Formats: sequence, structure tokens, C-alpha cells
Amino acid sequence: MDFRSDNVASVAPAILDAISAAGRRSDTPYGDDALGKRVQARFAEIFERDVVVLPVVTGTIANALSISLLTPPWGVIYTGDGSHTLHDECGAPELFSGGAKVTPVAETAGKIDLAALKHKIAAAGKGVVHNAQPACISLTQASETGAVYSAGEVGAVGDMAAEFGLGFHMDGARFANAAAASSDSPADMTWRAGVDALSFGATKNGAFAAEAIVLFRTEKADELTYRHKRAGQLLSKMRLISAQLDAYLEGGLWLTLAAHANKMAQDLIAGLGAIPQTNLEGPGEANEVFVSLPRTVIGRLRDAGYRFYDWPETEPETTTIRLVTRHDNTADEIAALLASIREFCAAS
Amino acid sequence: MDFRSDNVASVAPAILDAISAAGRRSDTPYGDDALGKRVQARFAEIFERDVVVLPVVTGTIANALSISLLTPPWGVIYTGDGSHTLHDECGAPELFSGGAKVTPVAETAGKIDLAALKHKIAAAGKGVVHNAQPACISLTQASETGAVYSAGEVGAVGDMAAEFGLGFHMDGARFANAAAASSDSPADMTWRAGVDALSFGATKNGAFAAEAIVLFRTEKADELTYRHKRAGQLLSKMRLISAQLDAYLEGGLWLTLAAHANKMAQDLIAGLGAIPQTNLEGPGEANEVFVSLPRTVIGRLRDAGYRFYDWPETEPETTTIRLVTRHDNTADEIAALLASIREFCAAS
Amino acid sequence: MDFRSDNVASVAPAILDAISAAGRRSDTPYGDDALGKRVQARFAEIFERDVVVLPVVTGTIANALSISLLTPPWGVIYTGDGSHTLHDECGAPELFSGGAKVTPVAETAGKIDLAALKHKIAAAGKGVVHNAQPACISLTQASETGAVYSAGEVGAVGDMAAEFGLGFHMDGARFANAAAASSDSPADMTWRAGVDALSFGATKNGAFAAEAIVLFRTEKADELTYRHKRAGQLLSKMRLISAQLDAYLEGGLWLTLAAHANKMAQDLIAGLGAIPQTNLEGPGEANEVFVSLPRTVIGRLRDAGYRFYDWPETEPETTTIRLVTRHDNTADEIAALLASIREFCAAS
Amino acid sequence: MDFRSDNVASVAPAILDAISAAGRRSDTPYGDDALGKRVQARFAEIFERDVVVLPVVTGTIANALSISLLTPPWGVIYTGDGSHTLHDECGAPELFSGGAKVTPVAETAGKIDLAALKHKIAAAGKGVVHNAQPACISLTQASETGAVYSAGEVGAVGDMAAEFGLGFHMDGARFANAAAASSDSPADMTWRAGVDALSFGATKNGAFAAEAIVLFRTEKADELTYRHKRAGQLLSKMRLISAQLDAYLEGGLWLTLAAHANKMAQDLIAGLGAIPQTNLEGPGEANEVFVSLPRTVIGRLRDAGYRFYDWPETEPETTTIRLVTRHDNTADEIAALLASIREFCAAS
Repeated sequence: MDFRSDNVASVAPAILDAISAAGRRSDTPYGDDALGKRVQARFAEIFERDVVVLPVVTGTIANALSISLLTPPWGVIYTGDGSHTLHDECGAPELFSGGAKVTPVAETAGKIDLAALKHKIAAAGKGVVHNAQPACISLTQASETGAVYSAGEVGAVGDMAAEFGLGFHMDGARFANAAAASSDSPADMTWRAGVDALSFGATKNGAFAAEAIVLFRTEKADELTYRHKRAGQLLSKMRLISAQLDAYLEGGLWLTLAAHANKMAQDLIAGLGAIPQTNLEGPGEANEVFVSLPRTVIGRLRDAGYRFYDWPETEPETTTIRLVTRHDNTADEIAALLASIREFCAAS
Repeated sequence: MDFRSDNVASVAPAILDAISAAGRRSDTPYGDDALGKRVQARFAEIFERDVVVLPVVTGTIANALSISLLTPPWGVIYTGDGSHTLHDECGAPELFSGGAKVTPVAETAGKIDLAALKHKIAAAGKGVVHNAQPACISLTQASETGAVYSAGEVGAVGDMAAEFGLGFHMDGARFANAAAASSDSPADMTWRAGVDALSFGATKNGAFAAEAIVLFRTEKADELTYRHKRAGQLLSKMRLISAQLDAYLEGGLWLTLAAHANKMAQDLIAGLGAIPQTNLEGPGEANEVFVSLPRTVIGRLRDAGYRFYDWPETEPETTTIRLVTRHDNTADEIAALLASIREFCAAS
Repeated sequence: MDFRSDNVASVAPAILDAISAAGRRSDTPYGDDALGKRVQARFAEIFERDVVVLPVVTGTIANALSISLLTPPWGVIYTGDGSHTLHDECGAPELFSGGAKVTPVAETAGKIDLAALKHKIAAAGKGVVHNAQPACISLTQASETGAVYSAGEVGAVGDMAAEFGLGFHMDGARFANAAAASSDSPADMTWRAGVDALSFGATKNGAFAAEAIVLFRTEKADELTYRHKRAGQLLSKMRLISAQLDAYLEGGLWLTLAAHANKMAQDLIAGLGAIPQTNLEGPGEANEVFVSLPRTVIGRLRDAGYRFYDWPETEPETTTIRLVTRHDNTADEIAALLASIREFCAAS
Repeated sequence: MDFRSDNVASVAPAILDAISAAGRRSDTPYGDDALGKRVQARFAEIFERDVVVLPVVTGTIANALSISLLTPPWGVIYTGDGSHTLHDECGAPELFSGGAKVTPVAETAGKIDLAALKHKIAAAGKGVVHNAQPACISLTQASETGAVYSAGEVGAVGDMAAEFGLGFHMDGARFANAAAASSDSPADMTWRAGVDALSFGATKNGAFAAEAIVLFRTEKADELTYRHKRAGQLLSKMRLISAQLDAYLEGGLWLTLAAHANKMAQDLIAGLGAIPQTNLEGPGEANEVFVSLPRTVIGRLRDAGYRFYDWPETEPETTTIRLVTRHDNTADEIAALLASIREFCAAS
């Protein structure tokens, strides 16, 4: 059983069907088709306003292009010190921004620390020509450590962006998981809280390869269009992505799938809570569960065929592992995993 | 009926089936799966040697990344003056190379003019620090004007690249059409003729969105891997592309589809040859047909619902149109088009 | 005697004195000193309005930074097909613009051809996402072939820039020679004719290494300031350049020096006109003289110790040479050169 | 009296004389002159081997170009967390490297912490395509906090670079101060300790605007030459910089000037040691002195006309100031400063 990441998931059947239907016909290229327009309309409905939507194939490019709209090449991008944008994109934000700096900010309980953020920005030398210039904040929702920001918490970051005249990007690779876990609306969690551009993920939650750049600062639409083409993201048969997004959004499928993945995580957390040798690390509010276990238990789980990552992967002595639940996990899978942990802990 | 481009085509059923099959299962991410390995093996077989293959979603990025391996940021890329790389990629080669120059070379009968190419390179100031430095040649196969280079003709360009110490890239967005039209082998048409990197297209010939960078200069594999990730082309569910390429290559489907598209073009050309008011422009060796017609005929064709582009699109007074045939055209469609042209010409 | 270029000249004594005076004292770094302010004021007086002035050490960087203000990374820069910006800067405009395209436009009588320019821009696909976007025009004054644009001619280019919504840069490496040769005012020759940014050269006309970016579109001042620093052009002892510019502008020295260089060229042209075997090529309106001569004469001149370039340097069969006159040439030097040409022609 | 930085200094008379002499004559452009060659020879002598030397006008560009040779665009540059390269170059290393990441490493006693460095590199994911790749280390000599690395200490960093296959750059804006303070030879402090490229500073120690990139990894000479031109650093009258470097190196002037600046700092430190309310911060091994004082004393010093920076400048509550001594300070100036501090401390 594979708990390495939600990106090992299968594709939701409705999305596969939509791909097939879109592929069977001839159509106008480059997204200028009915499906492309419908996806725009669906996003406008979800976010309760006009938005500019550009479909892309990876979260890496969704983040890098979004950020490139919000920083000059001599800008600084503030992001949590565990973020993908900082660590896992092989310098994509630097490439597409023309050389901006991605700067880590300390996190508290899996969320960016507002005081640390404010101190970093205030000390950055805004207006001083020798220093790279504060340009934008990039927040991950749900965070890499499984935390979900409320609309109010996003708004506090947005207020800080406004105070310092910065752009505000949200990396929503798991935005669905955050939205499903929250009682706040997508609009309240994004643009009403000051977000300028959102990387809206679908790939980790049932799509095949589909993310959308949702741009709220719509006066940047032209610039985004050229950046998107130039990045090699303007598919001639763009309906490959549009079809996925269309099915993903239809009837709230995105929230249904995410709610299921979240539920699997909650069940896992509840089960772990009853096993004395385990210790939950991190908030566990979405679909990522961090738990520390005796190293012998970790080894036996691997021997038994379970797959997951040590956390952080780069720390050889860690006893924490990351377990990610998915839209296609079954209750039986979670139960089996819990049974194995229980058994190995008892024997350790 | 739509003759605007082969990118308006439907997706071949076998490829749609492969996508569905790959999507239904969970798998290891980032291309490190069985499908990814099988695609590598298929390319090795087709090209009769070890190759490095990186799947991507557009021809734009296939070209830009391939070229970025063959030029420093201060390099010059020589390409035909009608090429996509020069005109239609919104500066992608410049972005990914870090600012290299794409320089046009005159074409003769739809192919790069060797004497013009040699003159340009010789006059470029190789070794002179003030001048951007000759770095690579990018050849389009089949060319944008419907010409197919023989292995010998590719080799003549390869010899020139070798003479001046340049890299050699082939934009093979329509490589299948060229291969199907030629009696030369894929190996003879590429690396044996000096090609270092090939953009191997599938999207225009039955795939949904799938191109492969086929790297013959394999010592650049690591560099390509980082460039590919950094460009946002490393899909977590890379099997979306691998599945397309796998089905595309299996049993020679790629050649079958291309041969059909080429046959449709040959039928069209043969039919046009019997209509006095038409004049074939360009070689018509693959699946692109350029024909000049009375402007009244062009207008009536449009009124009758046929879709195609004036050529070149930017010349308001042109009487030439481009007709592109596809893997999914039927003989009836070609016959209908010919009948309409015949009728409108007779009435003009 | 050395007629290769005006960049082989000595430095004007007043400028050397100013360097020494500035170096002998301690001062506030980074240009925030009295000299820096005085240079700003002098430029404001010459151009009859507020301007933003950033001193730099080469024409290469003056051009590249100026242009980077007027184009997005996906832009096209139109320039004469013999321009420095196109040929002689090893890709600097591409580097500092983030990958824009420098595109040649045909020249007529040494000046950019307006009809050719208009055709290129109109055919570029403005607003079409596949095409790099028309962004700015870069005009060289005096041109590389020795022509001087009148204020009216600059204005015609400016009107075209305005018509298409493009920026307008002037490469004024020899602006002094143009201004000295013209009856138009510096203001009329630049911003009143639509120029947004001027590379104002001094190095070729008596300075040691000093150019100024004179920005008329002053709302871009902040952006320029960061680009300038980031390019490594913000000298801590900026007074090294400010001192040169200050002395260069004081009392109209820049025009005096340029008028002398131009006079030397006019004397040379007049003398050549009386020698039957010579043929003047190009307008010869500033301080560059292009003349065709029998190849034996060219050889004998070189044997006699004269230094100059064949033109174009890359054409092996050319019989044209370029002779550049300078602020520090003497009438005797011109007379000696003419005598030698006369003698060698008579013997040929 | 101005203790803000050594960049407020006057220019050494011998260097001013050399500039004047070089400016009075005509010469071959672009550094291909006798002076340029002599500078190369002088560096070869100082470093006891063949080196490639490229003169530039700022430390910013010396660092950025040196580093660009040692990292791919997807690389990571490790540097001390107080370094200029990290904080004070407005993103120049990012621009010239094509988007590499400059990453801070903790410092201990003003020097990079080897254990922290090793941990950062080891955790960076070398060979993992998702992560930017460890590429080079940049060490500042003398450090920003006034420490001088011995040859052995440099070698320990060089060993780590070798262990991980990284390049090794030294920012020697104050290399002269370090060399003058050390008993180790320049060769032992650089290439024999593993340094690949050195930014050899002169501007802070008596030159007007002159730094040299000294490249020990000489197989990169061609690449450096193109990068240097493209960056706008190839002055046509390159002798403006060559003349400065030539005079700076002649007869060991560079060490004489630096030794004097260091002596002024030692005298200052000795004097401060006798004043109870002061506390020396940092090692004070070169020409930068960090001292904490009562805030009232700091205020009175400013009122009395002394100029200096709070340290760090971005910390509003700091009671530490930085005093930088220079090649042109007199013993009287130091004595006067000490007298003022003594007086204000006694009164506080």
C-alpha cells in the first residue's frame, strides 16, 4: 500500500471519461473551444467573480508563472521554510521570474509565522538599491505540513502584503483539501483575503495532470497569456486539460474527492491516537499525517510492503514519517495500515 | 471541414485507450514507472541505439529545451526563415537558453539554403568577443512548407554543423510525416546524419498532447533532466504522456497514421493538378498543401464552411492558402473539398 | 596612424583633470555626491527638461539597460541591420531584457527604412500569443554608416513607435557627432521626437569610459535604478564617471570635440573627392568615412602603417574601408593620409 | 570624519597618475594593449602561476560573473549569512547565473561555520531532480565582520567543495586587507586552498574603480570572456582599469595601502580597549571594527560630525556601530576619534 503522496493516485473515472470524450472529436486549438470557455465560467462561479484562468500541466509551472506576475527580477518572494516553491521546484520560480529570490520564513504549527514574516520584510531594505526588493508572499494552502489556513488567517497575511505593497500568491496544490476541511468559501479564502493569484491544483486530487492559474488581479491577464505560451504550456489540444478541470469542478466533484481524502486522514489520526507508541506531529487538518514511531516499527512497516517517506527526508535520524491519504483510498486500506502499526508497536 | 492545421485533429482511439488504462491505476510518480521505461526502449529500438527520452506536452517546450542544451546564452541558433522556432514560440527558445539569438536563414523550395547558411555562419564572427557566437542549427522536418529532407540532405546540414563546431537540433513536430514519406530510416535521418537532439512530435499526428525530446548526445542527459523539471514539464503522473507515446509507437502506429495523412495530401494534390485555375505552391511532400487560387474561390470556400489559413497569414494580398491533411481525414472529405474547388473555379 | 575607430582616441585633457580632482578627495559613495547632482542638472539644461540620468561605463550596457526598460522578455526590438545592438554586443540586450528578440530592419542610405520598418511591425502578429510582441525601436544616432538623422527624421520614427504603441530608444554612442552636425537642438532630436531613453555616449568623443542613460520616460526611474545596480554599474566611487561627464558637458566641450572630429571627416571627404580612383560609400555626415579603393592601394596603405578596417569586416572580397576621425586628430594627420592615398592611387 | 566605509576613500596618488598617463595617449581598444598584458603578468607573479584576469569596475559584477562560471542556472551557491553576495547586490548573482539560488550559511566569529555548511549541502538533495543542485561556495575574504581566514581555513572550505564536487569562489573585495594581515601567501590563500575564481578588489583600497576577476580554473577563460563582454564590462578604453591595477600591484602598493588601513584599525581597537564603556564585537582582524557603545555616546559622536553605520543597519535597537579604516586615514584621525569616544563615554 502506497502512502508516499497523493500524486500516486489513480485518476477519477469521471475525469478519464471527460478526457476520452474530448479526444474523440476535432476541435479548435489552443483552448479557444467550448470546453475552455466552460471552465472559465465554472471558476467564475466558484470564486463569485470574474477571473482569468490559464490551465497548465504541473504545480511547478502554476507556481512559477503566478509568482512571475508578482515580482520583478530583482524581487524577493517570501514563503514558508518548508514550501515546495523554496525546495522542490529546481529553481523554476527563479527561471520564470528572471532571477528573483525565494526566501524562507519560519513556520509555527505548519503555518507561516506572521511575526517572523514581518521582521524579514521590514529588514529587507525596501527602497534601498543595494537590496533585492520585497515583492510578494507565497502561501501554501493546505500547507506542506498538513495545516489549513482559515479565511481570517489568509486575510492576516493579505493585510501584511497590503501594508508593504507586496503581491500575494497562494500555492493551492491541495486547495481542494483545504476548502473541504474549512467552513469558509473559496472566495473568502482567496481574493477577499487579498490573494492576487492562485495555483489551483487538481492533479493530487483525482485529475491526471491539470492545474489552473486563477488570476484575480485581472489586469495582468495579457502578461500571463504571453508568459504561459512562452513557457510551453499552451497545448494545441488544450482540451486535454480543460476536460479534466471541467469534470473536476462539475457538481462539486473536487470537494467530494478532497473530503474523502481528508476523511481517510482523520480516520488514520483517530486510530493512531489509540496507539501509545505513536505521536502525531503537525496539525493533520487536511490529508497529510505526520507521525513519529519507533524506528523498528518503521522498518517493519516497510518490510510489510507499506510505502511512505521519512520526514524530513534529508534528516537521517528522524523517526517521523509522512502518510498521505488520497481520493481513492478505501476505509479498508486505512484499517489495514492501523492494524499493522498496532501490531508492530505492540511487538516493539 | 477544417483544414487549418493537423492540431485540430481528434485523438487516435488506441491512444485514448492507453490514457484511460494508465489513469485507472495507482503508480510511482515522475515517470519512474514501467510505462516510462517501455517508452525509452521503444525509442531505442526505432533509432537503433541508446537514447535519452524526456516526454513533454508541447512542441514549443520540446524545441526550446532541446536548443537550450546546444547553445550558451550568448549563442546564435540558425533556422529557416519560416520556422516555428523563429516565429511561433513567443520567445521560448530565448527564455530557456538564457537569451540566445534565433537567426533566420533563407530557404529554397521549402528547405534551408545551404549556401546562405554557410555564409551566415562564416560571417558571424566566431571567436570574436563582440559577436554572439554560432552555436547550433535547428532544422524542421518535415519543413513548415511541406518539404521532406532526405537522410542525405540532413547529413549535408550535419556536415556543416560539424565543420563549424555547432550543435544540430531537429524540430520534428511532423517527423512522422517525414519518416512515412521517406525511404530512409529514422536513424539515418537523425543521429547518423549528425543530429544531436530531436523534438519528436506526436500531437499533430494522433496523440492528445505528447512530444518527446530524443537526445542523441547522451552525455547531456543530466543537464536535460534538470532543465525539464525546472521548466515545469515533470508531471507527477508522467504516465499521461508515456501512455500516449507508448501506444503511438506500438506496432508502428505513428507511421500508419502519418502515411494516411500524407496520402490524403497526395490525393488532394493530384486532384488540384486537374483544375486549371489552381497552382501548387511548395513541394507538398508531407501533409501540408499550399495552393494559389482566385480570391473569389477562396471566399466561396470560406462561405461554404471550409476552414483554412491564408499563407503567409501576415500578407493581406496573398492568394495562397494552406491546407493541412490529418490522420483522421477521410477520402470523402478530400473528394468533397476537391469538388467544391472545382465547382467554384469553374464558376469564376 | 590609427583610423580604426574613435575608441582608440586619447582622453581630453579637461576630462583627465576632472578625474584627478575627483579622485583626490574622500566623498559619499554611489553617486550621492555634488558631482552626481551637477551632472543631472547639466543634462536637464541640455535637454530643456527634467531627466533621469544613470552613468555607466560602456555603450553596451547603456543600450542594454535602456532597452530592457522598453520591452518585456517576450518583446521584439527593431533596429537597423547594421546596428551595434544587433551585432556587436554579444547578446547583452537579450541578457538584460530577459530574452527579447533583436530584429534587423533594412537601411537605406545608412538610415532605417521606414517602409521596411512599418511592414515588419505590421506583420509581427501584435496581440497574437504565438508571436513575440513588438515592443520598441532602437535607432542609432549618428548611424553606424555615418548618417545623421534630422529631428524631423527622428520624429517620423517616433510617430511610428506611437502608432504601434512601441517604446523608442536612441543609441547615441555618437550623439555628440550627430548634434554637432545638425542644426536641430538635442531636445528636438530626442524626446520632442518621441525618444523615451537615450544612450548618451562620451567615450568615443574624448571621455575615458563614460556614457549616460538619459531617461525621458521618468516614471521608469525606479526600475532603471534597480536594473543599473543589479548589472554591476553602480560604482561606489561613481564620481569617476560623473567627473568625466561633468567636464564633458561643461562649456559645451562635448560639441566642440565632436565638431572637430566631424571637421576632420569633412576634410578627408573633400580630399578624397579629388582622387579619381576613390569612391565615397555612405553619407559621411558625422565622423565615419567609408570609401572604396583599389585593393592594391588598401594594401599599400596598410604597409605604410595606416590602420583601419575593411567594411564590412566579414566580407572577404570587399574593397571598402572605414576611416574614423576623432576629437584628437590633427589637420596634418588628415593631410598625410590624403597624400598617401593620392600617391598610391596614382601608382596603381 | 567619515568611517562609513572604505569606499569613501580618496584614490591613491600613484593610481591617479597612472590613469592620467594612460589617458593621454591613443591605444588599441578592448584591453589588447601593453598595459593589459602587464597586468596579466603581475597577477601571474603574485599568484605564482598562470591565471586569466578580466578587469571590471565593481565588486558586484566581479562576484556575479565569477559565480556564473561555477553554477548552472539550477544551482545553489552557499555563502555566509552576512555576505554581500547574499544581501547587497540586488540580485546580480541571480541575473548573471540565470537564476541560481544564493543560500545563507550560519557564521561563527565572522567566518562561515563548517558544520553548518556541511549540513546544508548534505541535506540539499544532490542528484534529486526536484531540488536545485549544490554548485559552489562563495567565501568573503576578509569577511564582512572583519575576520581573516588563514590559508588552512580556506583549505578546509576548499576540501569541502572538493568532497561534494562544488566550485569555490572567493569574494576578495578586501583581499588586500586579508593578505596584509596574514603571513600566508596569496597563492596559499587561494588556488592552493582550492579556490577556482577570485574577485580581487582594489576599489576599497586606493583604486578609483577597479576589480579583477582572477580565474584559476583557466579552462573557463573563453566562457568568462563572453560573459564579461555581454555584461557590458569590456571597456573600449580598458586601460582605464588596467592602469589602476598596474599601479596598484607595482612594488606591492596594494599590500602597503592595506597594511596601513589595518594598522589604523589595530590602533583604534587598542585605544577602545582602554575605554570601559566600549565593547569590541567581532574579530577586528582587518580594517573593520565593530564596537558597542552607550546610545548616548553614539548620538554625541554623530552630533560631533563623525559618520558611521549602526550594525546591522536594519536593527533599530542595536548599540553596535561599524567603523571602517582606510588607506588614507591618518594617525591623527584615529586619535581624534578615540579622544571623542573617551570624552563622551566619560560624560555618559
